[in-house]
Amino acid sequence: MNLDALFNPNSVAIIGASRDPEKIGHVLLKNFIEGGFRGQIYPINPKCTEILDLKCYASVKNIKDDVDLAVISIPAKLVPEALKECGEKGVKGAIVISGGFSEVGNVELENQLKEICLKYNITCLGPNCMGVINLLTRVDSVFIPTYKMGRPKLGAVSFISQSGAIGGAVLDLMARQGFGMSKFVSYGNAALLDETDLLRYMADDGRTKIIVLYIEGVKRGREFFEALKEVTRRKPVVVLKGGKTSGGAAATKSHTGTLAGNAAVYQAVFKQCKAVEAMNIDEIFSFSKLFESQPFCSGDRVGIITNGGGLAVVATDSVEENGLKLAELSDGSRKCISEKVPPYVNVKNPLDLSGDAGADRFEVAVHAMLDDPNVDAILVGVLFQTESIDSRVLSILVEASNLKKKPILVACPGGEYAEVHSRILENCGVPTYTSSTYAIKSLRKLVDYSKFINK
Amino acid sequence: MNLDALFNPNSVAIIGASRDPEKIGHVLLKNFIEGGFRGQIYPINPKCTEILDLKCYASVKNIKDDVDLAVISIPAKLVPEALKECGEKGVKGAIVISGGFSEVGNVELENQLKEICLKYNITCLGPNCMGVINLLTRVDSVFIPTYKMGRPKLGAVSFISQSGAIGGAVLDLMARQGFGMSKFVSYGNAALLDETDLLRYMADDGRTKIIVLYIEGVKRGREFFEALKEVTRRKPVVVLKGGKTSGGAAATKSHTGTLAGNAAVYQAVFKQCKAVEAMNIDEIFSFSKLFESQPFCSGDRVGIITNGGGLAVVATDSVEENGLKLAELSDGSRKCISEKVPPYVNVKNPLDLSGDAGADRFEVAVHAMLDDPNVDAILVGVLFQTESIDSRVLSILVEASNLKKKPILVACPGGEYAEVHSRILENCGVPTYTSSTYAIKSLRKLVDYSKFINK
Repeated sequence: MNLDALFNPNSVAIIGASRDPEKIGHVLLKNFIEGGFRGQIYPINPKCTEILDLKCYASVKNIKDDVDLAVISIPAKLVPEALKECGEKGVKGAIVISGGFSEVGNVELENQLKEICLKYNITCLGPNCMGVINLLTRVDSVFIPTYKMGRPKLGAVSFISQSGAIGGAVLDLMARQGFGMSKFVSYGNAALLDETDLLRYMADDGRTKIIVLYIEGVKRGREFFEALKEVTRRKPVVVLKGGKTSGGAAATKSHTGTLAGNAAVYQAVFKQCKAVEAMNIDEIFSFSKLFESQPFCSGDRVGIITNGGGLAVVATDSVEENGLKLAELSDGSRKCISEKVPPYVNVKNPLDLSGDAGADRFEVAVHAMLDDPNVDAILVGVLFQTESIDSRVLSILVEASNLKKKPILVACPGGEYAEVHSRILENCGVPTYTSSTYAIKSLRKLVDYSKFINK
Repeated sequence: MNLDALFNPNSVAIIGASRDPEKIGHVLLKNFIEGGFRGQIYPINPKCTEILDLKCYASVKNIKDDVDLAVISIPAKLVPEALKECGEKGVKGAIVISGGFSEVGNVELENQLKEICLKYNITCLGPNCMGVINLLTRVDSVFIPTYKMGRPKLGAVSFISQSGAIGGAVLDLMARQGFGMSKFVSYGNAALLDETDLLRYMADDGRTKIIVLYIEGVKRGREFFEALKEVTRRKPVVVLKGGKTSGGAAATKSHTGTLAGNAAVYQAVFKQCKAVEAMNIDEIFSFSKLFESQPFCSGDRVGIITNGGGLAVVATDSVEENGLKLAELSDGSRKCISEKVPPYVNVKNPLDLSGDAGADRFEVAVHAMLDDPNVDAILVGVLFQTESIDSRVLSILVEASNLKKKPILVACPGGEYAEVHSRILENCGVPTYTSSTYAIKSLRKLVDYSKFINK
């Protein structure tokens, strides 16, 4: 199967393009135009001759040039005929947005769709899906207006989601926090292409550094297991399984028509394959932003730097609760720090720089720990509320993080002032958390994966 | 002891008031003036005759009228003399902001401070603390400029924090999210007033509905235990214990000079006393905003309403993982909903209203569940990203929540558009979460406490 037609097409036909701004077929077309898609765009609608200043066609068969991809959003019962026309035209890929197939019991209609795609060799995603976003080529079949859901900037995480809702929510969160993404795909009913195919595609994709997966149930258990085991040796895979409980499993059935299967089996598979299991949406996000931006680490000894005693206490608790170790600072780094901080700062780990610390003390401490052979990763807890902290601390943290010597994570709980500063840090590639709890939980995942990869 | 002098003084002296905007003594004075403190304000500084347009005094003894409260921010060694003058003047309460006492080994100086306060019957908070905020009387001794740390609006939660840093961070988060607070107190070294005294004061305070407690170690174990047991029968107490692990405990020692004690003992005490234990800062915040705004519930059966299948699956998992039950909808409410939603909406719990749902479907569903005797609490998962959702859904949720019939919680993950809407919901007293995970975890705490109180 050639999945490139879905992610890197040179031309796209929007089947069901509409003039009515309320219709999905309109939003789809608009997102392709305004999103800056780098190829030809062909609206298809037999009732129009022109939509949004583009010439409109009655059928893909009327287009003279080649069409790589068709995005289809028309009533379910009309989809097989449209796909047949695509096949006759030689369209290579199709994203079927339309719902109304196996998820509502129309198994027969979904089988028709399958047969046509197999007959004409169409690489088909869906039906009942949100499709694809490629931040590089600007394919964007997600029918949500950009004012309601931001698109992340170009980066290294690719996200495969069985659920459009979860996918959309996570995309939106990622966009908000300056998170970098390569490709997004929501595959819905997986009539032909399923999670295993997509996982293998992302593994081979040079622009994908981290793969994130939301699944409710897998279509082909054995193949999935084999693929996952292979892929994690090459790239980290962060995975959230929906439908872990009996109630949740029942809910998935009427959602994407898949059987959720036994939760314990999935958990065992993830563990054995060294996939990074997230337990909820927040964790997907926390884990992948750390994996995306920070280097692997050589051990589990954490250095903690803060400008608030309470924050140091709570962070230390998190380190031990997550089975990591508090680093024992070397004599060298203790000496180096002591020389440059006031005498009332007790130089040890956790290092509480005291409430009157400014950016300079953070600079000394971060660099001493970066050079300290006893420290494997650094958590910096910044209380932006204190009088002596200003925006200078940002460049210190960004520069230290850019060295890529050891993972650096920042925790800065707080309101508007803290938020603005965390967003700047995130945008500059420093993973930032509102509390040390999630930061350390994420670090634990990075430590485990680093150990596996370094073996 | 009369703690009213700390929380409801008619007049305050700022000992160590300064003209230098960089000095704490300046920020303190400014916060009293600009914060709208409702009484007399007297700057004290022998080197000035006037600061920020207020007449400045060399000593409290030079003030003619009564002084209820002194806020002291001068070098530690000068504090005993200042307190002595306060005693001679008849000042009732003192907040000692200054550090440099037992937390750095100056036990002798702290003993002097104690003796003077006992001799003159001064109700003294600190030393080494951030002191008090009372959102009603506008006492505000927290020396952080308001542009760096917002103050919450007036409400019903009172927060007792052993750590200034944790306290400040949580205050700031609360301010940002439109959370209502009555009183805040950071008590530092607890030379005289400790967590037990403050807990009892808040229990008797008519404006406090929920008490939040951050402690690292308690001074008087038995008294604290007795007080906690009594107070939870009257008001919910949400508690976070810092220094739970051995490393964390060691860190508390150099922070507030307290012994953290055995974590298992604390946990057992919280459980036995029916305090609501939070495991981190995020949980403090999640739990207390639910307790503050929502009624108690009569059982553990949860109704879930969403406009996204994946969100319904994940929320259902959370319900079962937290030991709550998925409500079985009554025939009445099923019929009532079925009549008003399209036929492709599968009317059951979790109720996925489908991606094309607008505010009207949410209205039908929420009211049917509010009237359903089989439902004890309602989680509404709103994906603000979908085309058909607009701001109308806000008034429906706020009005339903205002009925106070059953707890209603909203989960809306997402970026800027979702955030703006969550903030409006929060401001209108509807507890809102970025994911269903924290929402359901918080609900579990409310269910447990409701059971205890309803017994």
